[in-house]
Amino acid sequence: MDKWSKHDLLDLQTLSAEEIEHVLETAKSFKEVSSREVKKVPALRGKTIVSLFFEPSTRTRGSFELAAKRLSADTINMSGSGSSLSKGETIVDMAKNIEAMNVDLIIVRHSVAGVPHKLAENLNASVVNAGDGCRSHPTQALLDMFTIKDKLGEIKGKKVVIVGDILHSRVARSNIVGLTKLGAEVTVCGPSTLIPIGIEQMGVKVSYDIDAVIPDQDVIMLLRLQKERQEEHYLSSIREYAKTFGFNANRLKMAKKDVLVMHPGPTNRGVELSGEVADGARSVILDQVTNGVAVRMAVLYLTLGTKDVSKEE
Amino acid sequence: MDKWSKHDLLDLQTLSAEEIEHVLETAKSFKEVSSREVKKVPALRGKTIVSLFFEPSTRTRGSFELAAKRLSADTINMSGSGSSLSKGETIVDMAKNIEAMNVDLIIVRHSVAGVPHKLAENLNASVVNAGDGCRSHPTQALLDMFTIKDKLGEIKGKKVVIVGDILHSRVARSNIVGLTKLGAEVTVCGPSTLIPIGIEQMGVKVSYDIDAVIPDQDVIMLLRLQKERQEEHYLSSIREYAKTFGFNANRLKMAKKDVLVMHPGPTNRGVELSGEVADGARSVILDQVTNGVAVRMAVLYLTLGTKDVSKEE
Amino acid sequence: MDKWSKHDLLDLQTLSAEEIEHVLETAKSFKEVSSREVKKVPALRGKTIVSLFFEPSTRTRGSFELAAKRLSADTINMSGSGSSLSKGETIVDMAKNIEAMNVDLIIVRHSVAGVPHKLAENLNASVVNAGDGCRSHPTQALLDMFTIKDKLGEIKGKKVVIVGDILHSRVARSNIVGLTKLGAEVTVCGPSTLIPIGIEQMGVKVSYDIDAVIPDQDVIMLLRLQKERQEEHYLSSIREYAKTFGFNANRLKMAKKDVLVMHPGPTNRGVELSGEVADGARSVILDQVTNGVAVRMAVLYLTLGTKDVSKEE
Repeated sequence: MDKWSKHDLLDLQTLSAEEIEHVLETAKSFKEVSSREVKKVPALRGKTIVSLFFEPSTRTRGSFELAAKRLSADTINMSGSGSSLSKGETIVDMAKNIEAMNVDLIIVRHSVAGVPHKLAENLNASVVNAGDGCRSHPTQALLDMFTIKDKLGEIKGKKVVIVGDILHSRVARSNIVGLTKLGAEVTVCGPSTLIPIGIEQMGVKVSYDIDAVIPDQDVIMLLRLQKERQEEHYLSSIREYAKTFGFNANRLKMAKKDVLVMHPGPTNRGVELSGEVADGARSVILDQVTNGVAVRMAVLYLTLGTKDVSKEE
Repeated sequence: MDKWSKHDLLDLQTLSAEEIEHVLETAKSFKEVSSREVKKVPALRGKTIVSLFFEPSTRTRGSFELAAKRLSADTINMSGSGSSLSKGETIVDMAKNIEAMNVDLIIVRHSVAGVPHKLAENLNASVVNAGDGCRSHPTQALLDMFTIKDKLGEIKGKKVVIVGDILHSRVARSNIVGLTKLGAEVTVCGPSTLIPIGIEQMGVKVSYDIDAVIPDQDVIMLLRLQKERQEEHYLSSIREYAKTFGFNANRLKMAKKDVLVMHPGPTNRGVELSGEVADGARSVILDQVTNGVAVRMAVLYLTLGTKDVSKEE
Repeated sequence: MDKWSKHDLLDLQTLSAEEIEHVLETAKSFKEVSSREVKKVPALRGKTIVSLFFEPSTRTRGSFELAAKRLSADTINMSGSGSSLSKGETIVDMAKNIEAMNVDLIIVRHSVAGVPHKLAENLNASVVNAGDGCRSHPTQALLDMFTIKDKLGEIKGKKVVIVGDILHSRVARSNIVGLTKLGAEVTVCGPSTLIPIGIEQMGVKVSYDIDAVIPDQDVIMLLRLQKERQEEHYLSSIREYAKTFGFNANRLKMAKKDVLVMHPGPTNRGVELSGEVADGARSVILDQVTNGVAVRMAVLYLTLGTKDVSKEE
């Protein structure tokens, strides 16, 4: 690749396979920084990064905040209450006000899909999507891909099954886009009510029977199941879900010996997976968290290294 | 001016015209810092600044926090819940406890007028008023004056109309004090219910007819209208207010060609001003935000540069 | 002492008298840092410290945050909502996720006694207890001991009475452990309903009559009385408590001339002590706050200086 040219990170649709690989390579060197005695480099000294979260989050926000601090950037947290900001135009207005404080990059999470894209269209500051509605969560997918590559050597040709509530999952969507781009064979698996119709068009296989697909997979990626899905009648019961799709020691026995068990966290132990499996030898859940900081350092570093020439006149 | 001697920034009443000019001059050099690649100077390294807000705020708080960080100070955010702190004496007690952690400066916002003054009387740490009740918001007025001077060259002789809820506005009061001190001719304009009786004694003209005053003005400063004013019977309706006082494209046509349209934010588009005007060529709303950081850097820097000799024994 | 070897600070039971003295000595040099013009040393540069508070707190949290920042560490605040985290296992899971971001030290406060110990057993990161249930608040006791030693020269042989709600007080428990270890003679005093049965086994005397014990004491340590105790029927009324145990000017006259009046804050003026006494010459309440930062700097510095060899394989 000649040179990184993306001013924003909005989703993985707009990154080429080569660009995704470049993020993963860059993250590799930043992972090393976090293992040092002095976990800090001056790369973004004097840059201002604002995290603007319209959904509560401690993990993702903390991960981004640490990433920014280890790059020596100045960080500010802002919370948006959705109420007064329900119209896209108003959010743009708010973001422009933040940008006017000479802010270099805004990390945004919002329950409405497309908000980060809307901001990026209207701002000169870089925009990084930390999750928008059910659409995208690109840094989560990047850290998942980093973890797979780190553990299995490569992504190309690997078989990955994503299990659970595909319908509502931005983690699933971003992983599907990224993993297929890098040549993985992705299957989605879950109750039929939670698999979106036509998902095959994203280049994935669909299964409703986890036991049928387990033996083939290199990676089992479990999604968090929101308890609300039962009340919303997507599920007859959480217990039934746990029985039918929960990944436990019995199902682990059916899998390849060196299978990776992944979960974006926080886990519902006893639902998506058993505590035994979560803490077991095949689980890379905590590696995902560690790699998350490295990947976010790479994303902040790369996007801030560009000038958005397309926006300049 | 010989030397800056103010240990606190409580209001603009207690600053001379010369001192206000000195803040604006100092802010000019700090504005340059925020436009650099590395937006950071070591001026306040090792100083501790606490923001103590008893009213919710993201913008003003964020602006102060960025100002402090760009000067390399250490910052801590503390929120006071009004409930347990309703008595002035107790707030002093809380602030003394904060000060005891060798804190150099406390930025305070409180819904009761006079709280910052009370703290300044009782603390050796510097106190900066980030808004007290309906009385003062000195850094807002300073950034407004900075913006006018920056855009129009000088403040002396300029005609400024402040439009809206003058009665409840600390922004209006601080601007009136500062602008008249620097020789501007200030008019206040709004519904008679929202103009305090006797305001002329502050050296301003009063108008109830925005259309009559627009043509003369160099600056139109619109205030945020709290929706509660309707319920409180200050207004028959927000819609009526928007029609009678809202600044829109038609009214802009009546104004001088190089008029400045200002607003302290956040704006109610369609109420105080139309979106078209807010985003138009005469609007300097985002400049105000940018200048806010510079002015706050100047205030933190100047007040922390003094020793409060009056308080030492 | 040869070398500091404690990887965590969970309580004072597990520190020897010599180790406690070492913390106090270390804090002395850090206190000097906070009195400098530039209140900052690079000791923990590039270290990551997370404060994880499951109970609301601004003072203790702020004190730790300042301590960390003056040592140049990177800090992140995380709040745990108790609800989803009622089971010990789940808190461990959450903490392991935080640790996985290459976090060096977690400061934890929780309403359930033993949570910090549970985390320390399961983490490689250092754990510092910022208060667990009614059990321990070791940094508070250390700062109290620092203050006594600083003011009275030594702790050995000094008479200290702790007054108030001993039953629910982690401050009392940690002080009893620490002070008796260093040779002080400790009395606890309060209404019989608020003195735990068998407390004498911790090496303290018990009194229900404050007036009888005051004349002998070198230190009067007053505890905060939670207003809820009245509703919970531990007390007939707050007013009655204030009359029977409140430390006021009259009681101060009965005390030694150079007695120290202490309180962990925040005070209920008019309940545990009168405003006059709180602000009077014998009160060292604000010294306690100042010393708190120094003691916490020492604790962060010392625990981070160790490798937890016991946990490594």
